[in-house]
Amino acid sequence: MCNHCVIEDVKRSMLSRRKLLSAGLAATGAAAVSQSLPQATQAAANKMMLTDLTHELSEKFPTFTGEQQFFIDPKFNFAKDAFNQNEWRINEHTGTHVDAPLHFSADGMSVGELPIEDLVAPLAVIDIRTKAADDADAQLTPDDIAAWTSKNGDLPPYCVVAMLSGWDTRVRTNSFRNIGDDGKTMHFPGFHVEAVHQLLDTSAKAIAVDTLSLDYGKSEDFAVHSTWLPAGRYGIECLANLASLPAAGATIIVGAPKVKGGSGGPARVLALQ
Amino acid sequence: MCNHCVIEDVKRSMLSRRKLLSAGLAATGAAAVSQSLPQATQAAANKMMLTDLTHELSEKFPTFTGEQQFFIDPKFNFAKDAFNQNEWRINEHTGTHVDAPLHFSADGMSVGELPIEDLVAPLAVIDIRTKAADDADAQLTPDDIAAWTSKNGDLPPYCVVAMLSGWDTRVRTNSFRNIGDDGKTMHFPGFHVEAVHQLLDTSAKAIAVDTLSLDYGKSEDFAVHSTWLPAGRYGIECLANLASLPAAGATIIVGAPKVKGGSGGPARVLALQ
Repeated sequence: MCNHCVIEDVKRSMLSRRKLLSAGLAATGAAAVSQSLPQATQAAANKMMLTDLTHELSEKFPTFTGEQQFFIDPKFNFAKDAFNQNEWRINEHTGTHVDAPLHFSADGMSVGELPIEDLVAPLAVIDIRTKAADDADAQLTPDDIAAWTSKNGDLPPYCVVAMLSGWDTRVRTNSFRNIGDDGKTMHFPGFHVEAVHQLLDTSAKAIAVDTLSLDYGKSEDFAVHSTWLPAGRYGIECLANLASLPAAGATIIVGAPKVKGGSGGPARVLALQ
Repeated sequence: MCNHCVIEDVKRSMLSRRKLLSAGLAATGAAAVSQSLPQATQAAANKMMLTDLTHELSEKFPTFTGEQQFFIDPKFNFAKDAFNQNEWRINEHTGTHVDAPLHFSADGMSVGELPIEDLVAPLAVIDIRTKAADDADAQLTPDDIAAWTSKNGDLPPYCVVAMLSGWDTRVRTNSFRNIGDDGKTMHFPGFHVEAVHQLLDTSAKAIAVDTLSLDYGKSEDFAVHSTWLPAGRYGIECLANLASLPAAGATIIVGAPKVKGGSGGPARVLALQ
């Protein structure tokens, strides 16, 4: 297929996808990007779809420990001061956020040191919603990666691999942390350490989840964190709206905070398709 | 020119630009994006350039008031706890950051409410470095906009208009805030309110500066903030590396924090070209 045909094909498929998606934009956080990409992109893709993979962050956002980790303190207000300005107190690992290699290593890269070329990456979305619906302790295993590659081909070089468990829809309920009958153990899906070992043999730059942790909720040893992050790769937790993306073909843009010495931090995460 | 020819032309021009820029990547924060854009983009643009427009944020980052506005408090450390985790205390208007309409209005959009399609936008870079080098109180005026449009055509729809004063290179020196002989008045460039009135007649979504404020340093009335933000547009302050971008043709990606009720917040800002 010549370049011309490839481009025309992509334009047709994107136009068709846009029509399909347009009814559900408000619900999924997606929006059509008009006149907002470089001419090269516009010429190729006409309008591209932009999806917000970020949860709104408020003081009530659920946390791994169960304790409030974000506080917003008004310092100036419009009625009194003619402007509004707040101060935040925030744990780095709150809301939709990045885990830098430094989170689980003595001297790994901080969140401010992540190379920008690793923040804009092809996104592989591995859908484990069916088994997660049956078992809150489900894990993304090598079999799930194999199922993805059998349908979509090899993982793209330097990609981000995301687990879609469907957990983002629970974010405003107790079933997001999902404490069990023992009153303390959380039950939500995560990566299996064997899948992570397999991904370390690829060029994947990050793994991402729509739950509170890269490890599944009942993990007692943070095996995934301890395997993935010290290897110089990074993680993303608490993603939203992965269900509105294709399994392959989207590009993730990770707006990681450029904080010196940060072990992670809240991030604005978008996807282009 | 047929689509095929346009695409081939763009590929050639981007390849040539990449070669030109490759020697200066480390200095400018730019990087080549390989295998990290959707197939549609890759087919059109081969490799695109990614530029980091974000300053590193540390406790020493200069602030508008001169007082420290970012504090990092280690809560866990690897030697003792087997992981690193910090808590931040941060004023919303610190480092490379967004001013939301709510910053200067009673009930304007918060930073969490900015539409995502306004966060990915064509970027017009208006270069006033020559006059800013002569006069630290220089302002971006309607004449500067006219000079840009005479060379580049109309401003793109829904764009971000950035002032390039060259001030980002001063960020680690006292000349960034640039206090005058009176010991209190700051002297750095900003937008002139007449330029902002003119931009309100366009569809521009945001104005951006490489200094500490949308208004120039010696402003006593925040005329630009008070004109632009209540109109439902937003601002970006303390951008870096604008000098490495073309006047027209780049796309800005504003990783604004999705914080409920925030009047602004630190953002990871990137540019694609």
